[in-house]
Amino acid sequence: MADKFISERNLRFLLYEVLDVEALTRRPFFKDHDRQSFDLVIDTALKMGRDLLHPSLAEMDQEAPRFEDGRVIVHPSVRTFMTECGQGGWIGAGFPYDLGGQQLPMTILLVNSLIFAAANYSASVYPMLTTGAAALIAAFGSQELIRTYVPPMLEGRWQGTMALTEPQAGSSLADITTRAVPTDEGYYRISGQKIFISASDHDGVDNVVHLMLVKIDGAPPGVKGISLFVVPKLRPEADGSLVPNDVEVAGLYHKLGYRGCPINQLALGEQGDCHGWLVGEPHHGLRYMFQMMNSARLDVGMGAAAIASAAYYASLEYARERPQGRRLTDKDPTRPPVPIIEHADVRRMLLFQRAVVDGSLSLILQCGVYEDLAHHGPEEERERHALLLDLLTPVAKSFPSEMGVLSVSQGLQILGGYGYCDEFPLEQHYRDARIHPIHEGTTGIQGLDLLGRKVVMRGGRAVVHWFEEMAAVIQDGLKHPTIEPYAVRLQEAMDRLAAVTRRLSGLALAGDVERFLADSTLYLELFGLVAVAWQWLKQGLAADKALAAGPSEEDAKFYQGKLLTMKYFFHYELPKTLGLAERLKEADGLTLDMRPSLFAD
Amino acid sequence: MADKFISERNLRFLLYEVLDVEALTRRPFFKDHDRQSFDLVIDTALKMGRDLLHPSLAEMDQEAPRFEDGRVIVHPSVRTFMTECGQGGWIGAGFPYDLGGQQLPMTILLVNSLIFAAANYSASVYPMLTTGAAALIAAFGSQELIRTYVPPMLEGRWQGTMALTEPQAGSSLADITTRAVPTDEGYYRISGQKIFISASDHDGVDNVVHLMLVKIDGAPPGVKGISLFVVPKLRPEADGSLVPNDVEVAGLYHKLGYRGCPINQLALGEQGDCHGWLVGEPHHGLRYMFQMMNSARLDVGMGAAAIASAAYYASLEYARERPQGRRLTDKDPTRPPVPIIEHADVRRMLLFQRAVVDGSLSLILQCGVYEDLAHHGPEEERERHALLLDLLTPVAKSFPSEMGVLSVSQGLQILGGYGYCDEFPLEQHYRDARIHPIHEGTTGIQGLDLLGRKVVMRGGRAVVHWFEEMAAVIQDGLKHPTIEPYAVRLQEAMDRLAAVTRRLSGLALAGDVERFLADSTLYLELFGLVAVAWQWLKQGLAADKALAAGPSEEDAKFYQGKLLTMKYFFHYELPKTLGLAERLKEADGLTLDMRPSLFAD
Repeated sequence: MADKFISERNLRFLLYEVLDVEALTRRPFFKDHDRQSFDLVIDTALKMGRDLLHPSLAEMDQEAPRFEDGRVIVHPSVRTFMTECGQGGWIGAGFPYDLGGQQLPMTILLVNSLIFAAANYSASVYPMLTTGAAALIAAFGSQELIRTYVPPMLEGRWQGTMALTEPQAGSSLADITTRAVPTDEGYYRISGQKIFISASDHDGVDNVVHLMLVKIDGAPPGVKGISLFVVPKLRPEADGSLVPNDVEVAGLYHKLGYRGCPINQLALGEQGDCHGWLVGEPHHGLRYMFQMMNSARLDVGMGAAAIASAAYYASLEYARERPQGRRLTDKDPTRPPVPIIEHADVRRMLLFQRAVVDGSLSLILQCGVYEDLAHHGPEEERERHALLLDLLTPVAKSFPSEMGVLSVSQGLQILGGYGYCDEFPLEQHYRDARIHPIHEGTTGIQGLDLLGRKVVMRGGRAVVHWFEEMAAVIQDGLKHPTIEPYAVRLQEAMDRLAAVTRRLSGLALAGDVERFLADSTLYLELFGLVAVAWQWLKQGLAADKALAAGPSEEDAKFYQGKLLTMKYFFHYELPKTLGLAERLKEADGLTLDMRPSLFAD
Repeated sequence: MADKFISERNLRFLLYEVLDVEALTRRPFFKDHDRQSFDLVIDTALKMGRDLLHPSLAEMDQEAPRFEDGRVIVHPSVRTFMTECGQGGWIGAGFPYDLGGQQLPMTILLVNSLIFAAANYSASVYPMLTTGAAALIAAFGSQELIRTYVPPMLEGRWQGTMALTEPQAGSSLADITTRAVPTDEGYYRISGQKIFISASDHDGVDNVVHLMLVKIDGAPPGVKGISLFVVPKLRPEADGSLVPNDVEVAGLYHKLGYRGCPINQLALGEQGDCHGWLVGEPHHGLRYMFQMMNSARLDVGMGAAAIASAAYYASLEYARERPQGRRLTDKDPTRPPVPIIEHADVRRMLLFQRAVVDGSLSLILQCGVYEDLAHHGPEEERERHALLLDLLTPVAKSFPSEMGVLSVSQGLQILGGYGYCDEFPLEQHYRDARIHPIHEGTTGIQGLDLLGRKVVMRGGRAVVHWFEEMAAVIQDGLKHPTIEPYAVRLQEAMDRLAAVTRRLSGLALAGDVERFLADSTLYLELFGLVAVAWQWLKQGLAADKALAAGPSEEDAKFYQGKLLTMKYFFHYELPKTLGLAERLKEADGLTLDMRPSLFAD
C-alpha cells in the first residue's frame, strides 16, 4: 500500500533551486536560520507525517467524529498530534521569539503544512487553525487576551477556530446576525448561531477558542459593522479555572470526506451566558479576519496540493506495479503483459497529476516568499511584495483546489475499478479533495476577489508587478535553447491574459459591473494557468541549469523528469488558455440573459 | 428535498421535436406503436421512478449490500423492483413478440433506462443488465438455452450479468484465464475467478445467470480464443429444480458510490462442479459479447446523463430557494438577499449542468435512433446507420461519463458547504457518478476504440457519413438568422476536427501507431465536444422553429431556455476545441518520451 505521499527531493528543489529560500536568512528577522535549520525542520515534519499522521489516515476517515451527550469525540490520534505539535513548537513556529515562537519563514511553515496535509489532511487542520487563530490574537488582541489565550494555543492544549459562517449568510458575511451586547465588565454577551465551523468542538484538546465575527448592537449594517471577538468554549476565570461559556454544539455535519475533522454547528448564548472579548477596535473585524483568511487560503491551496501529492504517489506506485496489456506495437498475447506505466495514456494521466502537484506547490511557495518579503524584506520592496501576495492569493487557493480535484480523479482513474474501492486510498483522497473548492471562500468568491478587487486595486499596479516578474523569467528563459520555446509560449499566454484583462477593465470603467464580473470564475481559471506556467518555466530553467552542471545520474533523471513535466504543462494544459480567452473576450453577458424563469424544465 | 430528477417536457422535446421518433413507427417492426403508446410507456416509467425508485435512493446508499454467510443481502426494494419490471414487461420490452417482448424501439428503451437511472441509478442496473444478458442468449444461444433462461430473466426472477473482468486481466481481455473443459454431456466444466461483476449475486432474485467470457482448453491465445458461456448460479435440472452450480461469492467490494448494487468477486468451480453452456460457436465469444457491451455502453452513457440530470434539478431547486448576497449592482446591506440563481456565476454553473445533461441525452438518443434504423430501417440505409452507431458509441459512453462527473461537481458547488454534506443528494450523486468513466471500458479504452478502430474502419467511411449528417444540420441552420452564427461555429469546429483527424491518420498510415494513438483520450474529448455541439444545433433549430410557430407562453419560455443553453454550449464549451486541436496537431509523442525512470520523485 502507498507509503509515499510527498517527494523530499522535489521539496528541496523548489525551496533551494527554484525559489532560493536561503536568501531569506539574510533578512534580520530570519538571521538565526540557515539551510541546515530549515532541513532539520523539514526532516522532523516528514518523520511526524510518516510515523504519526499517515498511519491513521484511513482510520480517521472510517471512524469519523461522533456527537455523544453534547460532546464531539474524535480519533485519539488527534490529541497525540496536538500535544506533539505543541511540545515540538510547530503551532507557533512562525511567531516572534517574544511570544515563544521560532521566527521561521512562512515559506517553511507552508512546507510543514504541506507535509502534514499530504500525510493526513484532516489531522493537519487542527494545528493549522490554531496557528491562524493565535496569530490573529497576537496581531490585534490586547495584552491580556494574548497572555490568556496564546500560550495554551501554541502549546496545543487549546484549539483555535475561525467562526464566520451563519445559516442565513453563507458566503455573504454582510448578513451575519450573531450579536454582541456590551457589559460593564469588559466582556460582551454573545448570542447567535455559527455553522460549518471546522474543529469547533472536540475531545482532543482541553478548550476551544473561537475567533468569531459578530455584530455589536447598534453597529452599521453590512460588512462595515462586523467586529472580531474571542469566544472560548470554556472561559478562564481569575483563579485559572475554566467554566462553561454557553457555547453548545447544535449538530455535527456528515460529510463526503475530510471526515477526520469535525465540522459543527454552534449555538451561542442560549442560556444568556456566553461571554466574548473584543479583538481590536469595534467594526474592524473583517479587516482583522482577512489576515487569518488570507493565510488560511494559502493553507487550503496547500492542503489541496497535498492531497493531490498523496494521490499522485499512490497512483504512480500502482502504475509501476500493475501489469496489464501490451505496448501498442506488441500485440502478441503470448508475451507477458507490461506495467501500465508503459501505456501512453497512463503516462499522460501521471504527468497531469505531477504537473498539477508540482505547479501548485511552486505557486504557493512563491506566495510564501512574497509574504516573508512583504513583512521582513527590504523596506522599499515590501509594498510590491504585499501587492503580489494579494493578487496571487485567490489563485494560489483556487488553482490547486480545482485542479487538485481533477488530478486526484485522474489518479483514481489509473487504478480503474480498484480506484473506486476502499482497498486503495484514492477514493478517500477523491472525497477529501472536494472540500477545497468550497471552504475558505468558494472558487466563485475567489474569482470575484481576483478580478473585482485584486486586478483593479491601485490602478492595476499588482498586475503590472506580476507581469514584470514574469517578464524577468521569460528573459532568462529566452537565453536557454531548451527553455526558449516555452518562454515564447508563456509570453503569448501572458499577452492573451493582458488582452482579456484590458477588455474586461473597459467594461469596469464603463460601469457595466455585471458584465465585467459575469465570467470572473473563468478569468480566474485563465489567470491560474498563466501563473502556473510561469512557475513551471522557473522550474524548467532551474532543471536546465542543473543539467548543464553535470549532476549525478540520479539527479539527472530527476531534472529530465522535471523538464518533461514542464513540457507537458505547456503542451497539454496551457493551450486551454486559447478557448478561455476566446470566451472571455466575448463578454456578452450571456448568463445575465438567462433569467431564472427560462430554467423552466 | 429534491423530488424532480428529470424533465418530462424535455424528453418529449428530444423525442418528438428533435429526433422525430414517431417516424420509426412507419417501420414494419414498430408498426403497432404510435406516439400515444410511447407516451404511455414513458408515463408509466416516470410513475415507477417517482413512486418506487426515487424514495429508496438514499437508503440503498446508506444500507449498502452486505455479505453474510456466503450470501449477498441487498435492499428489499430490489426484489420489489425486479418483480415489477418482470410483471410490467420492462425487461423484455425491446424483444420480438415471439419471445414475449413488445418490439419497442431502442430509443424508447433508452428513455426508460434514463428515467429509472435518474430516479435511482443503482436500482436501475439490475433490470438493465438482465435485459442485455437475455438479449445475448436470444441472439446467439441455442433454442434450449433460450427456452431455459430467457423467460425467467424477462420475468425478473433471474438476474443477468456480464462477467468479463479477471484479477490479472482488467481491461485486457486477451489475458483472461477462466477455463472451460468440455464434457460428453453438453456442458463444460468451468473454473477460474471473475472480479468487479455487478449484481452478480444477491437475494433480490431467485437465480443469477452469468454471461461469461471463458477460454476453452486448447483455444488460441489472446482475444481470438475467447468463448461465451452461460454460467448460472443455480443450474436448472431436468425436473425443473435448481441446484447449486459451484459459483461462490469470494468477496464484495466496498465502493465510493453506486452502493445500492453489489459488485462481487466470484470463484468458479472450486469444487470442480461448475457447469457452463457454450453460447454460439467456440472462440467467437468476444464478438458476441460486443453486442451486449455496445448496448451497455449506451446504457452507461445514459446512466451518467441520468445522474447528472438528477443533480441538475436538485441544484436548480436549491439555487431558486436559497437567498444569499445581492446583485452586484445593489450592495445595500439593508435590503433582503436574493436567491442565488440571481448571481451570474450560479447561472453559469446551472447552464453548464443543463448543457451537459441535455446535450448528452440528445447524443445518446440519436444513437438509439441509429440503432433502430440499423436493425429495422430501410435495407439500403442499414449499413450507414450501423456505421454511425459504431462510430458514436464510444463518444456517447464517454462524453456523458466524463462531463457528468464535472456537471455533478458543479451542482455540488452551487450548494456550497451543504453540497458537501449528506443532508442533500449532491454528495451521493457525486460518488455515484464517478463509476461511469470506469465501467464498461474506461475512457482511455473508449479513446483507443474511437481513434484506433472506429475512425479508421472501412477507410474512414463512418466519419464521412457523420460529417454528412452534420453538414445537413449546418445547411438548415444557416437559413435561420438566430441559428446561423452557431451553424458557422459548428462548421469551424468540424473543420478543426477534420484537420486533426487528417494529421493523426497520416501517422497511422506511416505506421507510427504509438504516436498516432498517444493522445487518443484527448481526441475523444475533442470529438465529443463537436458531436454534442451538433446535437445542440439540432435542439436550437427545433426550438427556433417552434418559437416561430407562436407557442404558448410556457412553451416559449422552454424554447428560449433551450436557445440560451445552446448558446451557452457554443460560447463556453465548444471553444475548448481550440486548445485540444492545437495540442493534438502537435502529435509529438511527448508522453512516450517520459520513460518510467523519469518519474523518479
